[in-house]
Amino acid sequence: MRTGVWLVGARGSVAVTSIVGAVALRAGLTEPVGCVTEHPRLRSDALPGYGDLVFGGHDVVNTALVKRAEALAAAGVVPARLVAALHSELSAVDDDVRQMPPGDTAEAVAARLCADMDTFRQKHALDRVVVVNVASTEPAIVAQSAHKSLTALQRAMALPDFALPASSIAAYAAFSAGCAYVDFTPSTGARLPALHELATANRLPYAGHDGKTGETLVKSVLAPMFAMRRLQATSWSGINLLGGGDGATLAEPAANAAKSASKQRVLGETLGYVPDGNTRIEYVPGLGDFKTAWDLVTFNGFLGTAMRMEFTWHGCDSALAAPLVLDLARLTAAAHRNGRVGPLPELAFFFKDPLGATDHGLAAQFDTLAEFTASLT
Amino acid sequence: MRTGVWLVGARGSVAVTSIVGAVALRAGLTEPVGCVTEHPRLRSDALPGYGDLVFGGHDVVNTALVKRAEALAAAGVVPARLVAALHSELSAVDDDVRQMPPGDTAEAVAARLCADMDTFRQKHALDRVVVVNVASTEPAIVAQSAHKSLTALQRAMALPDFALPASSIAAYAAFSAGCAYVDFTPSTGARLPALHELATANRLPYAGHDGKTGETLVKSVLAPMFAMRRLQATSWSGINLLGGGDGATLAEPAANAAKSASKQRVLGETLGYVPDGNTRIEYVPGLGDFKTAWDLVTFNGFLGTAMRMEFTWHGCDSALAAPLVLDLARLTAAAHRNGRVGPLPELAFFFKDPLGATDHGLAAQFDTLAEFTASLT
Amino acid sequence: MRTGVWLVGARGSVAVTSIVGAVALRAGLTEPVGCVTEHPRLRSDALPGYGDLVFGGHDVVNTALVKRAEALAAAGVVPARLVAALHSELSAVDDDVRQMPPGDTAEAVAARLCADMDTFRQKHALDRVVVVNVASTEPAIVAQSAHKSLTALQRAMALPDFALPASSIAAYAAFSAGCAYVDFTPSTGARLPALHELATANRLPYAGHDGKTGETLVKSVLAPMFAMRRLQATSWSGINLLGGGDGATLAEPAANAAKSASKQRVLGETLGYVPDGNTRIEYVPGLGDFKTAWDLVTFNGFLGTAMRMEFTWHGCDSALAAPLVLDLARLTAAAHRNGRVGPLPELAFFFKDPLGATDHGLAAQFDTLAEFTASLT
Amino acid sequence: MRTGVWLVGARGSVAVTSIVGAVALRAGLTEPVGCVTEHPRLRSDALPGYGDLVFGGHDVVNTALVKRAEALAAAGVVPARLVAALHSELSAVDDDVRQMPPGDTAEAVAARLCADMDTFRQKHALDRVVVVNVASTEPAIVAQSAHKSLTALQRAMALPDFALPASSIAAYAAFSAGCAYVDFTPSTGARLPALHELATANRLPYAGHDGKTGETLVKSVLAPMFAMRRLQATSWSGINLLGGGDGATLAEPAANAAKSASKQRVLGETLGYVPDGNTRIEYVPGLGDFKTAWDLVTFNGFLGTAMRMEFTWHGCDSALAAPLVLDLARLTAAAHRNGRVGPLPELAFFFKDPLGATDHGLAAQFDTLAEFTASLT
Repeated sequence: MRTGVWLVGARGSVAVTSIVGAVALRAGLTEPVGCVTEHPRLRSDALPGYGDLVFGGHDVVNTALVKRAEALAAAGVVPARLVAALHSELSAVDDDVRQMPPGDTAEAVAARLCADMDTFRQKHALDRVVVVNVASTEPAIVAQSAHKSLTALQRAMALPDFALPASSIAAYAAFSAGCAYVDFTPSTGARLPALHELATANRLPYAGHDGKTGETLVKSVLAPMFAMRRLQATSWSGINLLGGGDGATLAEPAANAAKSASKQRVLGETLGYVPDGNTRIEYVPGLGDFKTAWDLVTFNGFLGTAMRMEFTWHGCDSALAAPLVLDLARLTAAAHRNGRVGPLPELAFFFKDPLGATDHGLAAQFDTLAEFTASLT
Repeated sequence: MRTGVWLVGARGSVAVTSIVGAVALRAGLTEPVGCVTEHPRLRSDALPGYGDLVFGGHDVVNTALVKRAEALAAAGVVPARLVAALHSELSAVDDDVRQMPPGDTAEAVAARLCADMDTFRQKHALDRVVVVNVASTEPAIVAQSAHKSLTALQRAMALPDFALPASSIAAYAAFSAGCAYVDFTPSTGARLPALHELATANRLPYAGHDGKTGETLVKSVLAPMFAMRRLQATSWSGINLLGGGDGATLAEPAANAAKSASKQRVLGETLGYVPDGNTRIEYVPGLGDFKTAWDLVTFNGFLGTAMRMEFTWHGCDSALAAPLVLDLARLTAAAHRNGRVGPLPELAFFFKDPLGATDHGLAAQFDTLAEFTASLT
Repeated sequence: MRTGVWLVGARGSVAVTSIVGAVALRAGLTEPVGCVTEHPRLRSDALPGYGDLVFGGHDVVNTALVKRAEALAAAGVVPARLVAALHSELSAVDDDVRQMPPGDTAEAVAARLCADMDTFRQKHALDRVVVVNVASTEPAIVAQSAHKSLTALQRAMALPDFALPASSIAAYAAFSAGCAYVDFTPSTGARLPALHELATANRLPYAGHDGKTGETLVKSVLAPMFAMRRLQATSWSGINLLGGGDGATLAEPAANAAKSASKQRVLGETLGYVPDGNTRIEYVPGLGDFKTAWDLVTFNGFLGTAMRMEFTWHGCDSALAAPLVLDLARLTAAAHRNGRVGPLPELAFFFKDPLGATDHGLAAQFDTLAEFTASLT
Repeated sequence: MRTGVWLVGARGSVAVTSIVGAVALRAGLTEPVGCVTEHPRLRSDALPGYGDLVFGGHDVVNTALVKRAEALAAAGVVPARLVAALHSELSAVDDDVRQMPPGDTAEAVAARLCADMDTFRQKHALDRVVVVNVASTEPAIVAQSAHKSLTALQRAMALPDFALPASSIAAYAAFSAGCAYVDFTPSTGARLPALHELATANRLPYAGHDGKTGETLVKSVLAPMFAMRRLQATSWSGINLLGGGDGATLAEPAANAAKSASKQRVLGETLGYVPDGNTRIEYVPGLGDFKTAWDLVTFNGFLGTAMRMEFTWHGCDSALAAPLVLDLARLTAAAHRNGRVGPLPELAFFFKDPLGATDHGLAAQFDTLAEFTASLT
């Protein structure tokens, strides 16, 4: 069950933390803290082991993985001792990280990506490859007729002025190369009818969108609490302060809007109504790789009594995301092996904006995930 | 299905808020916000309606319910307009609130309580009565051999120097009078083998302990979140600042210890380990009938990265507890009607320290409750 | 020392709370909690008494003051018993609240306002009148040459298409009518060279800008703490959630920007550098007349150790602002009587963006205020 | 102006951080962040330079300073690179750290301590030595007649069963050796009439008590804010969660009581009344060397409107205390040189429970400190 994990954005913080962690797990230098697939209800021999995972990917930048890992160590994201101990293992992965190829058309770029994935599979004699998008968040896109069918999309991709988001080009390449695809970001990725058609045609599963690492994770247990207790949330406001690279990207109003909408969705769908308030994202470089989210919920109880709760979440997104990337790679690879095709709503537990799933309550999502995992052989 | 609700501590804040609320619901002057049995998954014709509930009870104090309700209105717990509008209805309930009887022995006191419950049932031609303990928290007790069997208990209760907690005398009286019993407090109540024997002999159900209204409610969704995500809570510390009458009682070290232990239980049983830290209860008169709880959780993620979350809960215990008292009365009455005998672990959703249940996760408890409710006819 | 207080925005929440409070103080029904001039270091016979204050003003709306006061009582801002007890006193003030006059030119509007102020003074035989702007925040304006001198301004004001902010028209009218002027909002008000010229010519004092009621108040003591301790604030981010009328206005991006800039100023000027981060203002109707502000400060200590503090402020702006309006009216009237002309930097204690003052530390501002008050006769 | 800094508890976290920091400052490897004497208003040539400070001290444990510094680096308190770079400098200080001597009587112990201080001064040809107590907090003591005069104390110290706190023995030794004494802890130290007599006789200054590093620092700016604004604090409650060595000591009820009283003092003396509520100290090992404090203040404004604020302070006590230890050593040495004798109330800025000072407002304390520093030559 040798399984490739092809990371789009392979030199970013989430990817590098995932790689460092997987390599450290394989070397027995760390414990799988934060890996959901280690939960007693989810442990399964149907999943590839950490030692079976082989890493590669694309990135627009060229900095060596070791350099990136050292920067993360300096920022307190990964332990310096691990980076020092795993120097040669990290350098080895570097050989499989390709520069994001240029190209005159989406078709040309996709062909190059696809070829890189193929080479990676053959070089390492992999049973299968899961492509995971952990690149920067893209702005939301406008629907076009070219998105509606595979034929239309392919025709458009040959034209020099057709703009397809990088995440969707990556999904196209993955499906073309026979790889499953996971989108850990809120970007468009595989969410186009044309790409669904391609995945189905090639008998491939895909999953997403937008890894649920911090504030939304907390929301996904608190909102059901208010719902189960029939307490009326009159307002729910939140602010996310981010210092890392993702913060700079999300400060762009378009990306911010995409991410904020994804974050508020859990409320409406869980509570059955949308309380007043918004979720803001702010870029604050001084916070470094950590993120602080603050939420205020005001609610009414019996006889209209006004009450409130607030929470602060101070987390490191890369440290929260990385084990989930490993979980998703293992689960999606096993789903692929089990013949699953199309979206995997059973993985909703991992996402802010899950494909094809409607229950946003974390406990219900976990039950679904446990049943799914148990069904894999 | 006329159902009596006999409140032990009938002039306390929780009881009075429950009575004002039930009367207001019956009069169509308020909505059942905070009533769990209004959840679409729990609504059931097997439960008595709000209009079917008839209130009575015991208390050590004599202040008229209307006066108590006006005091709660001044404190912002219930709306003044409701109290003004429901003057005569509240006065009518007053006729069914008895002074807690004195007596030389526990047996004598229990007999008087039992007689009062009987009279209440007959006067209002009630199909059944649920006794709900909402009196002040008692200190934890030391186990005695007299607690072990009904025969031993009855023999001891006849002796003038045998001390049985008031909550257990109330449970004894309830079971003797053919009433179901619910303990909304952490007091001993029905939790003695002898009392279980009596409940079983008389074919009665009982439920408890310690209504889950605030901080522990939040813990019961956050702790499973950390468990499901396999994040390692290194410490979990909390402080509860209370200004109301319950606060004064809980400031007594013995009661405080009983309550604190009940509050930390959810952590160990949900996480599978006990993180560092305690839950403190402090009496701060200046806070009035509201309660502020603050919790700090420090946790480790992947590769040992240290993170933290904190939350503040500012709630009104009476407003949170009262709708649950109505829920519990309705559910326990229906269980009684359906022939249920002994503890009702299916009601764990409502309690910090539920009888006979082991899953402290709120979502799992809700599922169990929904199945239970659906099974009632 | 009969002193008129002419409120621009006389039917707004701050104005109505100020009027209810002053009338209640005169009637001996409340204590001057929150009135800075009651501080032992500030008490002075040179200030007019609460009983000497006579209220009037302008507003664009017409709702009776009693109705507005009842709405504030329902929202928990003022006690219902006070509004009930002071019915006739509030109705009496209504006679002196004029509708904001229409007019083809700024000159015409100003003349009408000026006439109203004059009538008010004569009717009540007032020794002097202080005009206080508590109307909604206006967008920041662009400097124009017409603002530079009184002659240029008067020429422009006669033209039908010259736009002068309402707050500046009010200041012009006040100075023309021989009244001192205080701006409790961040609007332009008297901050134009032409208006300074008019105030000086008529020997009048003025004060402002932007009452320091909540988050900025806290900042004005915390920022000096970091400065005195030589701790390096690496980021300072804040969010203000407002439900009241002011919130709706401030949600307008232009007004928001004006207010936010005013709020961050204290940091740069106190710390000597500007940390990363912004102050956001969000309109959340569900919060009603209360406001919640949350601030996160990250800072470095000795040897670069990273630390953090956060605070939440849950206040009622009207209840915080109203006593300051009374303070400012008393102090400015006394300054007028003592022959002070032009801006009053000694009142910096009250403002986020004080005129002519540079020390933003609250304690230093208080010392200055105490010296100023002591100097008044 | 070569100045000795003799640390009682020289291998504790505060002491080691102070030493690492001073050595790093001398080597130009760090900036004096958090050093109050670097404030423009406090910089003075009358103070010895960082390079003039020579360190020594006593401790009960023997672990090498480098080992202790490495442990602090692992805990994130000091940068590992500094410890690595300053190996030999730290080892050099080790030569001047003596084991706390045993002895049959307080007199014998004091004589040994005194001799060690003398040796230290002569060995390094120091102009003067300041003894700074940074050892663990001791329980509060009961006043005895032997404390009342130097003669009585000396008589008692010769008896084998006379118990004098270690901090007071250290103060006695310091004064006997002609050294100024600073108590950074809440322990008894020099606060005995007999020791004051000795300090005065030997013409020595002393300062204390209880360094104001975290929660109390914030209180000392917030309490004056409420006082200046005449807002009525109805309750002020706090909890301090500590993981470090000091936390274990403070968990002892007697030490806890001493520290808590010191922490609440600022409120009563600043506000003029004592609001409801306490300050709790809890030992939570999982928090390591960092401390989290949370405070809730409820307050009434104009017309009785109830409002609230809360703050969380997450700091590293050693990193906050160490620069103040350097400040105090510099200032006390200069005071000694300037002929100051007895307590130094002008250093109140640094302490929770300052000797001889009554103003607990931080800004006023800073002004006093600035004047004092300016007066030194």
